[in-house]
Amino acid sequence: MTIDMTLDDCRALDRADPLRNLRDLFTLPEGVIYLDGNSLGVMPAATPARVAEVVAQEWGTGLIRSWNTARWIDLPQRLGNKLARLIGAAPDEVMCTDSTSINLYKVLFAAMSQVIDSGDAARRTVVSERSNFPTDLYIAESLCRERGFTLKLIDSVDALPAALTPEVAVLMLTHVNYRTGAMHDMTAVTMAAHAVGALTVWDLAHSAGAVPVTLNESDADFAIGCGYKYLNGGPGAPAFVWVNTRHASKFDQPLSGWFGHAAPFEFTPHYRPAPGVARYLCGTQPIISLSALECGLDTLLAAEPFNADFGPMAALRTKSLELTDAFIALVEARCPGRFTLVTPRAHAQRGSQVCLAMKNPDEAQGNAAYAIVQALIARGVIGDFRAGDAQTPHILRFGFTPLYLSFEDVWDSVEHLVQVLDNNEWRRPEFNQKNAVT
Amino acid sequence: MTIDMTLDDCRALDRADPLRNLRDLFTLPEGVIYLDGNSLGVMPAATPARVAEVVAQEWGTGLIRSWNTARWIDLPQRLGNKLARLIGAAPDEVMCTDSTSINLYKVLFAAMSQVIDSGDAARRTVVSERSNFPTDLYIAESLCRERGFTLKLIDSVDALPAALTPEVAVLMLTHVNYRTGAMHDMTAVTMAAHAVGALTVWDLAHSAGAVPVTLNESDADFAIGCGYKYLNGGPGAPAFVWVNTRHASKFDQPLSGWFGHAAPFEFTPHYRPAPGVARYLCGTQPIISLSALECGLDTLLAAEPFNADFGPMAALRTKSLELTDAFIALVEARCPGRFTLVTPRAHAQRGSQVCLAMKNPDEAQGNAAYAIVQALIARGVIGDFRAGDAQTPHILRFGFTPLYLSFEDVWDSVEHLVQVLDNNEWRRPEFNQKNAVT
Repeated sequence: MTIDMTLDDCRALDRADPLRNLRDLFTLPEGVIYLDGNSLGVMPAATPARVAEVVAQEWGTGLIRSWNTARWIDLPQRLGNKLARLIGAAPDEVMCTDSTSINLYKVLFAAMSQVIDSGDAARRTVVSERSNFPTDLYIAESLCRERGFTLKLIDSVDALPAALTPEVAVLMLTHVNYRTGAMHDMTAVTMAAHAVGALTVWDLAHSAGAVPVTLNESDADFAIGCGYKYLNGGPGAPAFVWVNTRHASKFDQPLSGWFGHAAPFEFTPHYRPAPGVARYLCGTQPIISLSALECGLDTLLAAEPFNADFGPMAALRTKSLELTDAFIALVEARCPGRFTLVTPRAHAQRGSQVCLAMKNPDEAQGNAAYAIVQALIARGVIGDFRAGDAQTPHILRFGFTPLYLSFEDVWDSVEHLVQVLDNNEWRRPEFNQKNAVT
Repeated sequence: MTIDMTLDDCRALDRADPLRNLRDLFTLPEGVIYLDGNSLGVMPAATPARVAEVVAQEWGTGLIRSWNTARWIDLPQRLGNKLARLIGAAPDEVMCTDSTSINLYKVLFAAMSQVIDSGDAARRTVVSERSNFPTDLYIAESLCRERGFTLKLIDSVDALPAALTPEVAVLMLTHVNYRTGAMHDMTAVTMAAHAVGALTVWDLAHSAGAVPVTLNESDADFAIGCGYKYLNGGPGAPAFVWVNTRHASKFDQPLSGWFGHAAPFEFTPHYRPAPGVARYLCGTQPIISLSALECGLDTLLAAEPFNADFGPMAALRTKSLELTDAFIALVEARCPGRFTLVTPRAHAQRGSQVCLAMKNPDEAQGNAAYAIVQALIARGVIGDFRAGDAQTPHILRFGFTPLYLSFEDVWDSVEHLVQVLDNNEWRRPEFNQKNAVT
């Protein structure tokens, strides 16, 4: 990729792209270049019909009988088995259920319980990053307060070696940072944590369906993640939970609802956890939303035939890096001096998104990043804005989903960005009013 | 209602029923008399189109913008405000979110925290009923173990006065029992609990949309319940949580996810709970399933014009009691000596279901109740079976939803029951094999 890449070059890349037809698995709205699949994935073309079938046939006609006949009861596991193939997990190790925050509560509680049960009373620290997704920190705060642990936040990955002391019970990290797109080396970090006797909890919200994940190969301990981003499961789609088999049957998680019971329909008064990861289920799942998630998972599995012998996600990862490389190269070539690249340039440290900050100090502190994102949205290029604080800049965030984005989309989005800047379009008042959610 | 009620009498009751047209709000499958709305409610006729709109338009076209433009962000509160009218709550006191089990965890934790914070170290008992719905007991077991409380189970409501000692921190009851249909007097029980300084947690799974509930008038403390039974929200529909305003802003609940934060989209690293019941939200909600729940709530609100001055649920309650009275009278008249009525005969103690046990001791201990339910299902009369144990009999359970059931349905279901018994149909082998879920 050179800095003088042209629209024709992008079209040539699209013609040579082995994944180009996967775009047909989605319903992309007219006039939109969607660079926000890291916030809410695009609707698979199969979803409306599948959801309509679940509503009108399975519920409307089957009614209560569909728990058996439509196998609603198996959905968390069946979807978990599909997802397992994307995150380096084995069959029956993953459940699709509840929300990311709730699943984090379950696994962090379970990890803490293991440490408490070990009798090592000096090991009462949970380490995470200050830049982790806030809900992860909120859940950790709650559990630390309740269970007598200390939450220690590091400012960057460089501080990790020094932070990994024998007091650390759990290292809780998000694999790909939601703001910067920076990716941890899961294997190396897990090994470092294990070397001091700490357990690892990984949040895969920006990883599952976006980058290769090797949970078992990396010997991770616990993982959770989100169904509505790169998994294309729909707004607020149920999340997932994975537990290493060496832990799965060892602990009770506190949200011990009937669906995690060894025999939920025996209606016994005392809790007896199901074997394995099934004990991480709690209550009745939202079947319509869960069914929509299956259509999203199927879009990712459709890329499997292109992976050859390079393992899960290999083909998607290759294209993802090519897309983000192209976007970075074009922004740097066509908007010189305007942006700082926040996302790591090194492939091994990059997720499937590109984040930019304003280079000019006045613009970096002002409203420019927000307003540029709004001006792009008005042109149909949907990315998002994430506010900074004293330590971190405001950012423009662009997610690249190789399933449905083309190299021409990359060209066009940069072309729009150039026009927003050259025309000073972003200075218009309507792009400088804040909404509640972006 | 006399024991010589005829089919013509039932038809006359239907003609006189002011709620008879509400049945048109539902899509009832052909050839089915559905007496299982206490397990999974019938699909409202409006739901398929509404769900299709959420999927294809709000998600498919609106994408991430719909958090603002379709007000997804407000759904838990908007639905909570509709539900509030059915359960004697005020606006902004209810949130529709997560599952019943998870909401119970939140409120029971909060109730325990209040007692712990009060400094009364002797008050560490949670009282409930052995016959409570199992998931409630499992969640209570978990929290009691974790927080140093004792769970004390009483065998019947008669034991309640003796159980309410100064050691009781929380009285956790299900308002209408899932197996028997017996209903507690919420006001009297709450008053008795408060008299010894205990807080009350009410599970409204079989009450909301089924019977009048008077949370504020009864001065209850916490309540949770289910969206997929009498609220017709769809399979696994999100549940709800209500907290008395005197407690709502006082405690943190442990599942402190970003949606319960005072400013979730500021992405601050520390948790600051939202004011009021909004802090009982946790993670991102399953928007498709949540949208379907709104259609269910609307079917109940459609009955409001018939309530006159008798308060929420008055018209539905009147018809519910007439339906269950008719069913009891017809079963007793036409199947003499075969069944024992498990559900209380007294209106004040009856929910919206009728439960029967076999009278003959051999049949009571054997497979008869199960097989009769299966034989009825094969005839299109869908009720369900709940297994007994050493203390309690096997039961046949029939839920009566006044929104979509007629008196002729009652007649027909008893007619089928008579034939199942008279023909010994229930003794066929195919009705004597157990399924996983009934």
